[in-house]
Amino acid sequence: MKIAVLGGDGFCGWPTSLHLSEQGHEIHIIDNLSRRWIDTELGVQSLTPMDSIQERCRIWKTLTGNELHFHLLDLAKEYERLRQWLAEEKPDAIIHFAEQRAAPYSMKSDRHKVYTVNNNVNATHNLLTAMVETGIDAHLVHLGTMGVYGYSSVGAAIPEGYLDVEIENLEGEKKGLEILYPTKPGSVYHMTKSLDQILFQFYAQNDGVRITDLHQGIVWGTHTDQTRRHEQLINRFDYDGDYGTVLNRFLIQAAIDYPLTVHGTGGQTRAFIHLQDSVRCIELALSDAPKAGDRVKIFNQMTETHRVRDLAEMIARMTGAKVAYLPNPRKEAEANDLIVRNEQFLALGLDPTTLQEGLLDEVVEVAKKYAHRIDRSRVPAVSAWTKDIAKRVETDPEGKRLKSVS
Amino acid sequence: MKIAVLGGDGFCGWPTSLHLSEQGHEIHIIDNLSRRWIDTELGVQSLTPMDSIQERCRIWKTLTGNELHFHLLDLAKEYERLRQWLAEEKPDAIIHFAEQRAAPYSMKSDRHKVYTVNNNVNATHNLLTAMVETGIDAHLVHLGTMGVYGYSSVGAAIPEGYLDVEIENLEGEKKGLEILYPTKPGSVYHMTKSLDQILFQFYAQNDGVRITDLHQGIVWGTHTDQTRRHEQLINRFDYDGDYGTVLNRFLIQAAIDYPLTVHGTGGQTRAFIHLQDSVRCIELALSDAPKAGDRVKIFNQMTETHRVRDLAEMIARMTGAKVAYLPNPRKEAEANDLIVRNEQFLALGLDPTTLQEGLLDEVVEVAKKYAHRIDRSRVPAVSAWTKDIAKRVETDPEGKRLKSVS
Ligand SMILES: NC(=O)c1ccc[n+]([C@@H]2O[C@H](COP(=O)([O-])OP(=O)(O)OC[C@H]3O[C@@H](n4cnc5c(N)ncnc54)[C@H](O)[C@@H]3O)[C@@H](O)[C@H]2O)c1
Ligand SMILES: NC(=O)c1ccc[n+]([C@@H]2O[C@H](COP(=O)([O-])OP(=O)(O)OC[C@H]3O[C@@H](n4cnc5c(N)ncnc54)[C@H](O)[C@@H]3O)[C@@H](O)[C@H]2O)c1
Repeated sequence: MKIAVLGGDGFCGWPTSLHLSEQGHEIHIIDNLSRRWIDTELGVQSLTPMDSIQERCRIWKTLTGNELHFHLLDLAKEYERLRQWLAEEKPDAIIHFAEQRAAPYSMKSDRHKVYTVNNNVNATHNLLTAMVETGIDAHLVHLGTMGVYGYSSVGAAIPEGYLDVEIENLEGEKKGLEILYPTKPGSVYHMTKSLDQILFQFYAQNDGVRITDLHQGIVWGTHTDQTRRHEQLINRFDYDGDYGTVLNRFLIQAAIDYPLTVHGTGGQTRAFIHLQDSVRCIELALSDAPKAGDRVKIFNQMTETHRVRDLAEMIARMTGAKVAYLPNPRKEAEANDLIVRNEQFLALGLDPTTLQEGLLDEVVEVAKKYAHRIDRSRVPAVSAWTKDIAKRVETDPEGKRLKSVS
Repeated sequence: MKIAVLGGDGFCGWPTSLHLSEQGHEIHIIDNLSRRWIDTELGVQSLTPMDSIQERCRIWKTLTGNELHFHLLDLAKEYERLRQWLAEEKPDAIIHFAEQRAAPYSMKSDRHKVYTVNNNVNATHNLLTAMVETGIDAHLVHLGTMGVYGYSSVGAAIPEGYLDVEIENLEGEKKGLEILYPTKPGSVYHMTKSLDQILFQFYAQNDGVRITDLHQGIVWGTHTDQTRRHEQLINRFDYDGDYGTVLNRFLIQAAIDYPLTVHGTGGQTRAFIHLQDSVRCIELALSDAPKAGDRVKIFNQMTETHRVRDLAEMIARMTGAKVAYLPNPRKEAEANDLIVRNEQFLALGLDPTTLQEGLLDEVVEVAKKYAHRIDRSRVPAVSAWTKDIAKRVETDPEGKRLKSVS
């Protein structure tokens, strides 16, 4: 197949491109490299030394003989070029990773909120419009997030995208209705993924666009079979307070003998998936495309759930690190259950890597190995969800104490 | 109160500004005048001769002594200026009409789809972000549409925004959950109003923004008590195939002895409200603001529903016009029921003007009076919802015959 990987320079997009290239597909990476610019803006860098996209593509070609085509293009701002590219190349499938993906970054300031909505909504909508306009019949696979669900409070398992409800009609009879699972996003970033859902629903229904939306958990792990092949194919590893996910920041804190900082009670439950499994899920989703006229196919792309404090304790046990509790900069429930259905990928043959098996590798092969590159001052999460929370977090004595530790 | 009327140069915004000015409020109209530019783009003009916004404000001042402040500002593109304006003026209430509001225009071409999403989502989101950033405590009243509901097929009445559903939890117990009424928008324009709902839900929940969302039916009628006062205060009247709503186009067709063109079976049911009632509803909504932390307050702002073909027959009876059936350029059900709850406004004292009472005025005072200004070639609706429909509509013999009549 000819596959366009939008956002193919990113954390998930790069290993996906390599995996699918190895399987013999013709890969076209489209990326505006905005994520590299954000590193520059924040003054942070990937823990792992990461080469330019052009250089990485060159190395892959040398190693495998397979070409990775790279196109510098902004999906949100360059509609005309996008449409022209699709009309000329007519990809069979499009994998869409190209969005601003960090919740804390999306809450940093008004400018960051405006940027995130503008970038993500226009990127996704431009793509859909261009697909309809050019009349190409590509299968669109989009990366959404578990976070749109807003962690339902009724104690029910989160289904794969759709919910059957009953509505009483005028005659007092209960009628069944299938609806998109109602979302309650907890950040501007998550909100954009709720917006995406509505865009997908419309374009699938009005134009028969074939869409798969993957509601992904937090991706952990750095290496895949392909990125291991050469030091310069290494994947990015974000550990800063904005882009570093909770697990990555714990690993880094352990590596530099800093206490693992849990926000709030640590009772928040999150869903996780290993990078290798994420890449495999995309392969499985590609092989199971919906037909024109079908509703959007939604998968929950995650393999296990953990409370944040249990995760901290797991890493503390492995590394001897201490655990410290800090006020929570996010506006969220102190604790939540999270039960997620993921039968569809398991039925397609996914065989998950668990945190229990894979985590030690991350500690030794990544966090310890590159510890000399860590900028300790960038580990704390500083984006507060509201102005009131910002004040509370700022004046917290334990926070001050911890700041002086770093 | 100091009230900002965003989109105050438009069809609903102008009479609302006059009505609230007359009640003694300090009115600030913010508009980028994009709607006037779209008239130019389409080569159409309001049936009623409409002055510049500056001139209309001058006349109002001369007549009443009340100042209407006008600010040329693009909500979607000029975030910084918007924020600065809010910080300086600190309005008590903000009424948000400023979106691209025609479904056929939003479906005209890929460029129009991209424009509509970009304009509407960014206008609404910029406004919300700027309200939070400046910390002003204004009540936001937004104009949404009945069209987001997608005309539910289960035969139940459409509630005012929220739906109580039951979800089975892991123990097999049914738990109640209140959700936003699930939307199924039928055009890119309607879709942007679904997106707005998600933005409102998030900002009300995360930042305590006080928001009222008015799900409005099709507004008919031209005059209000204030626009009648002077020929140069007259409101706009759109009759072209993109901006003219079904009722306006029937009125114009009757005035020029052209058959009333019903699309499809005419079994589509729509909700209506008179302009004078729409203006009054906004006054009522302003007087009944939610508190910080409340969920978004949603009203169904409509007073009656009619099938399109019944409407055509009503106008045919009044005017002697014929009714003709054409293929439908929209992708929608041939017929739908529409039962809408609107108790909230009735409870607040709304006393509706019915079509039966008010329509003859429109025929005589507006359509006949300005018939000499009608460009017949602009009445047909030409935007097709999909490429397949465009082909069908294009080759329809009855359509051809009717084209030659015009
Ligand atoms: N990493 C995770 O844990 C995780 C979890 C759930 C969902 N996701 C989703 O998976 C996708 C990829 O995540 P990631 O971790 O690889 O993020 P990333 O930031 O590393 O990669 C995103 C890539 O998209 C590019 N991009 C952004 N906006 C663009 C635009 N307008 N035009 C062209 N390119 C653009 C960036 O330059 C970057 O290379 C995102 O949509 C994200 O929301 C990720
Ligand atoms: N007219 C109806 O029948 C009807 C029915 C239901 C809902 N509504 C809603 O009511 C609102 C007003 O409708 P209308 O009929 O008065 O439309 P309109 O097009 O006559 O007025 C909208 C005004 O907003 C301005 N505007 C648009 N984008 C802007 C931007 N980015 N910055 C600043 N100004 C901008 C336009 O210039 C115009 O003056 C719309 O949101 C519409 O969706 C209207």
